[in-house]
Order: sequence, then C-alpha cells, then structure tokens
Amino acid sequence: METQAYDPEDFRALGHRTVDALADHLAAAQARAMPVLPWREPEAALQAWPPDFTERGGADPLELIHRVLGESHHLQHPRYVGHQCAAPLPFTALLAMVSGLLNNGTAVYEMGPVSTAMERSLIQWLSSRIGFDPQAAGGVLTHGGSAGNLTALLAARQASTPYDVWEEGYRAPLNLCIMASDQTHYSVRRSAQVLGLGGRNVVSIPTDERFRMRPDALESALDEAELRGRKVLAVVGSAGSTATGAIDPLDALADLCEARGIWFHVDGAHSGAFAVSDRLRPALAGIERAHSVVIDAHKMLMMPSLATAVVFRDEGHSFETFSQQASYLFDRTARQEWYNLAHRTLECTKRFLSLDLYVALKVRGTAFFARHLEDTVDLAAWFADAIEARPGWELAVRPEGNIVCFRAPAAPGEDPDAFQTRVRDLIVREGSFHLVKTQLRRRTWLRTTLINPLTTREDLTALMDRLEALGKPQT
Amino acid sequence: METQAYDPEDFRALGHRTVDALADHLAAAQARAMPVLPWREPEAALQAWPPDFTERGGADPLELIHRVLGESHHLQHPRYVGHQCAAPLPFTALLAMVSGLLNNGTAVYEMGPVSTAMERSLIQWLSSRIGFDPQAAGGVLTHGGSAGNLTALLAARQASTPYDVWEEGYRAPLNLCIMASDQTHYSVRRSAQVLGLGGRNVVSIPTDERFRMRPDALESALDEAELRGRKVLAVVGSAGSTATGAIDPLDALADLCEARGIWFHVDGAHSGAFAVSDRLRPALAGIERAHSVVIDAHKMLMMPSLATAVVFRDEGHSFETFSQQASYLFDRTARQEWYNLAHRTLECTKRFLSLDLYVALKVRGTAFFARHLEDTVDLAAWFADAIEARPGWELAVRPEGNIVCFRAPAAPGEDPDAFQTRVRDLIVREGSFHLVKTQLRRRTWLRTTLINPLTTREDLTALMDRLEALGKPQT
Repeated sequence: METQAYDPEDFRALGHRTVDALADHLAAAQARAMPVLPWREPEAALQAWPPDFTERGGADPLELIHRVLGESHHLQHPRYVGHQCAAPLPFTALLAMVSGLLNNGTAVYEMGPVSTAMERSLIQWLSSRIGFDPQAAGGVLTHGGSAGNLTALLAARQASTPYDVWEEGYRAPLNLCIMASDQTHYSVRRSAQVLGLGGRNVVSIPTDERFRMRPDALESALDEAELRGRKVLAVVGSAGSTATGAIDPLDALADLCEARGIWFHVDGAHSGAFAVSDRLRPALAGIERAHSVVIDAHKMLMMPSLATAVVFRDEGHSFETFSQQASYLFDRTARQEWYNLAHRTLECTKRFLSLDLYVALKVRGTAFFARHLEDTVDLAAWFADAIEARPGWELAVRPEGNIVCFRAPAAPGEDPDAFQTRVRDLIVREGSFHLVKTQLRRRTWLRTTLINPLTTREDLTALMDRLEALGKPQT
Repeated sequence: METQAYDPEDFRALGHRTVDALADHLAAAQARAMPVLPWREPEAALQAWPPDFTERGGADPLELIHRVLGESHHLQHPRYVGHQCAAPLPFTALLAMVSGLLNNGTAVYEMGPVSTAMERSLIQWLSSRIGFDPQAAGGVLTHGGSAGNLTALLAARQASTPYDVWEEGYRAPLNLCIMASDQTHYSVRRSAQVLGLGGRNVVSIPTDERFRMRPDALESALDEAELRGRKVLAVVGSAGSTATGAIDPLDALADLCEARGIWFHVDGAHSGAFAVSDRLRPALAGIERAHSVVIDAHKMLMMPSLATAVVFRDEGHSFETFSQQASYLFDRTARQEWYNLAHRTLECTKRFLSLDLYVALKVRGTAFFARHLEDTVDLAAWFADAIEARPGWELAVRPEGNIVCFRAPAAPGEDPDAFQTRVRDLIVREGSFHLVKTQLRRRTWLRTTLINPLTTREDLTALMDRLEALGKPQT
C-alpha cells in the first residue's frame, strides 16, 4: 500500500493551499468578479471531465480544485437569485472538511457518538421552535427533503392502515390516496409512486388566488373520498409552495384532518425555517398541529446540501415506521434506542448531517438565523414593490416569503411567455444573474429566490434594468 | 444581515487553523496515540452536546472543532477494524470543503455542471469495470447503499409489472415478492417494506457452508413461486454479504434469472469494488449479466460517506423508473436528458457526490485503488491463517474478501457466545481496537473488516493477544 496518500504533512500542505484557493474564490465571487454560472452545454462539460482515468494517475489535485472552482455554479455570488439552494455560511465548508476526515456516519451510535447526539439535540430544538412538546416530539435528519417527505409519508401509511403493512404488504383493495395542493413539490407525488400508490392517487386540491390550498376544496375532496370508500393516508400542507412560497392555511387544514382522524404532514422544506423567527412564525400558525414536519436546513438556514429534519409530534411514529419488528413492540424496546438512528431512516449509514447546523447555532446564535430569514423576506417585499412600480411589469403574487415571481415587459411584438423564457436563458448564459422560471396560471413567469445574504437592492435593480433593456427594441 | 459571517479573510484564518488541527489529529490517530473510540454512554454524549443554543451564540468554532475531533470515533486509527466504513483518503476531506463551499447540488444540470459531468463519467467508468457495455449502460450516484438498493428495486418493479405501476399504483392481487439469500443486507428487506410488498414477501434463500446463496434452493423457490402464482420482482445477489463478505454464485443466479425473465440485481455495496482490480474481478464473474448493480465508494474505495453508484446494464431503466410521464415516453425524450439527474433518483437535490472519487482517480490512478483492495484481501487471508494457527480459535469461514469472522477461546467456564460479546464490549470500551460481532450458525462471532490501509499484521497480532489475555483465568 502506498501509505504516502495518508501522510498528515501532505494533507497539511495541500490543505493550506486549498483554504487559500477557496478564500480567494469566495472574495472574487462576492465582488461579482465572475459570471454567476459559467455556462456551457452539458456535452461540453462532459468532455471537460471525461472518464479518462489512468493506472498511475498523476494529476495535480490543486489544479483540479482550481478548475472545479472556476467551472462550477457560484451560489456565493450575490447575483445568484435562482433555485432554493443556500449560499452556505463559509465556515460550514470547514466543518465539511472535519466530517469528511472523521467519516463518522450516523447509523448505530458507536459509529458516530457526536453526530448522533448533535442530531437529537437539533431535532429537539426544532421541535420546540415548531411548537411541539419537546418531551413527546422527535425525529431524524435525512438526506434531503424528498427523502424527508417519503419518510413522513411512510409513517403516515403505517399509522393509517389498520394492519401491519410494513410486514404484510398492502391488502386489497388498494384504495389509498394522498391529498396535496396543486402547488405541492413533486416529491410528494414521487413518494406516492415509490410507495406503490400510483401518481394518480395523489389528489390535487385547488388553490386560491395566492396559491394556497383551499380548505373548502379539501373538504369536498375528503367528502368524496369517503363516499367512494377511499382511505386518505395523509393530507400534505405546503409551507411554502415551490413556485411562489405560498403557505397553506395550516390551521384550517389541521381542523379538517383532526375532525376526520387523518395524518397531517407539513412540507416545510423551504419556509418551515420561519419557525426560527418570532416575527415570521405566525405565518406558520397551525404547524404545531401537524403529525410530521419536514424542514430543509440547506434552504433557508444557510447550510450546504443536504440536511433535512423530519420532526414528528409524537416520536413514537418515528420508531414505529421502520421497525423491523411488529409495531406493537416499539414501546417496549425501540424507545430506549433513540441513539441507533438507522432504525428510523431510509438510509443505513448517513453522513454526519448534524455538524454544520449544530456548530453554526452555537457560534452564531439563533438570532442570526432569524435575522437572515427576516432580511430575505424584507428584501423580497421591497423587490415586489419595485416590480409593481415599473410600468408594464407584473407580479404573480405578493410574496409570503423570499420567492418572487414576475414578468418583465416583452419586446414589441414578442409573445410575453416566449420573452420570459428567452431572456431567462440569455441571462443565465451570460452569467450576469442566475434566476429561474415557472408556470403559473398557464403563463410563464420569471422566478427568483432571495437566499444569498449578500444580495442587495442594487443587485435587484440591476436585474430589473437588464431585463428592461432586453425588452427594448434593438437600436 | 451580519455579513461578517461571510468574510473571506475570516474564513481563511479559521481555515488554516482547522487544517492544522486536522493534520495533527490525523498524525495522532495514525500513531495510535488515542483510543479508537472514546467510549461513553449515549446519554452522556447527549449531555455533552445539548440543544443549549442562545440568541447571541458566541462559541469559539475552533474549540468546538477540537472537541468534535476528540470525542468522535477515529476511523483513521489503524486499529479501527470494525464496520464497513472507510478510513477516507485524507485529501478527500479537502474536496468535501470545496463542495461544501460551492454547494453545487446535482438535480438539474445548471445547479451543478461539474458535478453532473463527473457523475456521468464515474458511472461510465464503473460500467466498463463491471463488464457492461458502456454505450448501453448508465446510472446515478445516490446517498448510500440503502437508497441504491431501493432505486434498483424500483426499476425492477417498473420493468416487471405489465402495467404502469408508477402512475396507476399496484393492481390486486398483490402477489409480488423478492428473493435474496439469508445473508442479504437488511436494506433489501427494508426496500420491499417501503415499496409496500411487506417484509414477509422477501423470500429468504438458504446459503451453503460458505454463506453463498444456493442456486438449487433458488431454483426450488422460483418453481414454488410459479406454482403459487407469485410474481418475482427481482432476485438479489450479494457481493459480498454483510456478515462475512460472501459472494453469491452470480453466474448461476444469472442463468436462472435469464431463463425465467426475472430482474437480477447485485448488491455489490461492499465487494462490487473488486471490479476495479483485475486480480479480484473473477470473484464477481456473472456480475456483468445483472440488470442492476450497487457499489458503495465509501466502503472499499476509500471515500467518505456517502457515494453509492447504481449502475444499470440498460440505462433506459434508469430513466424509466422515475419518469413522471408514462414509461413509453422515455425513449423519445428522457434519453436526451442524461444531465438532469433528479429525474432518475429518489432525491431531488443531491450533494456533489462525484467530486471525491473523480478527483481521487485522476490524482492516484486506478492501480492505487486496485492495490488497496488486494492488500486488504491479502491481509484478511493472513489474519485467517493466524487465527487458525492459534489453538482453540475458530474461523467462521475462509474470507472471500476483507471481512474476517472468528471466535476467540473463552475463559474457563464461560459460555463461548457470552465471552465473545463480553470481550467485544470490553475492547470497544477500552478503545484499544474497534471490532464488531455477528450471528452465524446460531452462534456469536467477532467480526473485523480490514479497511484502513494503515492496519498492519502487528495490529492484528496485538488484537489476538489482547483477546487471548482476556480469555485467560484472572491471576
């Protein structure tokens, strides 16, 4: 074995150079001294990173790191206003280095004693912020919101079927469905598909003019399901929706679920983090009545991907779901084993998912995160005002969070939908900003998520100016 | 916003100090100058890392990092011979820092152009090492082997049902089952449970004296399933099994599956990596006939958790599985979208999973990894000889890879099973080594995975000596 590869001094030397490369890169990104995304076609990227591995290797790692830095998408650039992915707190990258070297996964306790303890503490803290009784609540971290929603819906399935579906499998007739709004993230549908319910058995509930689920429509759907003998495994509320960040009326949904004994899950991947801010928390009123809540720390809590919390109001459900024994056993045994987390997740080994957020909360404090949330929401409100103030611009809806969807005035004679698509692609390719688009009310909208703490009003004004220039007749 | 938290110079300063802390830690671990695991009870760990977050924070990040380093499990210690988790190549921790700062997830191409390209190249390379036609094969990386097996079995389900189960859900009667050996990793059973087949519908096929699935027993089980009208979604071969690393006779299993048109999945989480070594590759003969293969880079390829490859012999299955449209569409559209990987995984956003292995292969070369595999297998063979040479010691089976299971001679008058359990707990708690235990033939065995490249024969001799001393009457 060429043990040189494990030499601590080689690691130290390359480590210092890598830290410098990253610090320089961060400064350049913040100075807006590079395109947000150095665009190229997928095939070109593939040609730049081919599987041309040789027996002896020999590439210079620092050179490769520089290339990776140059050719990646720069979420640390303040003009990154695209997808719901955080520009992570830089020092979390150092924590990623720590967890990379330690490789303390979280499965059985002894493989990650610190990771296991931190995970439980984070879940306890989030439970109390959600408004759950921290003595009764509990849960797990998982690799992303899709896995989180699937985990919660597995618990819902286990709790909602009058037989042990985990051990027996489904009994016929398979008359199961899930209800969610027409604005729900696609992972809810995908979860139903994984579970074998079928995509068509996700009942899509209409939304109001602000893209929030209509409780009256949910009630009708529930009535109809009852009439047709369909069992509703869960109602999924969005907080907020993917396209616009709309927060469903959680209290009204909880009323309906409670009255009928139906599992109420809140997909708070994005805005569930509002629970951390006393000012923003009221928008989530009713979330404390959910059976399960998903919150992504890698969206609004400034963490790198992935760190998703799945929090159950009654921790028992978390044990029961993945129990390899029949569920009646869990009170006797599994309760005592909070520390063997693989009993409660899709994953066996997980990464040390808890390190970043735990340490960041200790170092920065909770007010720092609350302030970040409030600032992005305030910036979104300002941006919405600025859009409405410009003639010919359209705002899809007043933002409830930090996602703003709008249409810029099209060039004369150009179809407005085609215009939004064209200018979005143009801007992404020139790298001046990164924004995305979405479909709402059968029309195409530009969509921005204000998630990088260094994004300023001036950046957003520059974005509007650029869009306006693109809509002007060419002279 | 307190933008100071994003200051590049603060990052640089703390980064250098963190690199030094890690380099020092690595050197101390390699020098065996610390317990492998600084044992304490779970409740004590929880008390050490409570959710005592304050509004203002103020903890010193470097102090917390030092504490995390001191209190974690030291897989970089050469006397770590426990679970199947790698002691990662140290410089991959630097790559984790890079990907942490960039936060380029892999979902849609534009969010991670380099990560997407590297992922495809890694899959292509693994495809050719497996023996698939790289033109036809393809797949994805995912967060761990459990997610990998679930992904493969989802593809098997989609391919094996004569209707669109993804969209429609299961049709009654739900007479579906999966077959795997009695040594299969529990994630296969868990996958069946997630899919709603029920744990009892995983048919457990008996193994031979070397813990390999018996093809004659599989054939009988297949016959019986046919007689009883049960549809076999997949046969899962292990390469190798969790307890002993046994590799099922893949060619014989492939024959049976081929003759009956059944999906053949190989869980190569551990030993699938043998494909990288020309010397070890023959042990996997037949793997190239599988429909799908899972390989964990974070087990035998020296990567930190998690990086699992799910490779399909026919890439079409990878597109088809998660298609949000009906499956007949995939040839027309999805083929062209190899670069939007969220269409093909459980996850939406993934981490930059490809970076570590891609860069490591470029820097170290493929021979380096082959050599690591061969060295650990050779060390295991030496260890097995050494165990057999000691009077009163028992070897469970000649190792086929780098997992060795054995029993040390019990103290006079002590039940041999109880002895293995007692000394295992004692050694783990004193931190002199880390090893685990397992059940085989209704008896308790000590179990070691030789996975840290710095583990020597002297370390293993010291382990045997320590165990022997514990079995001696106290004087």
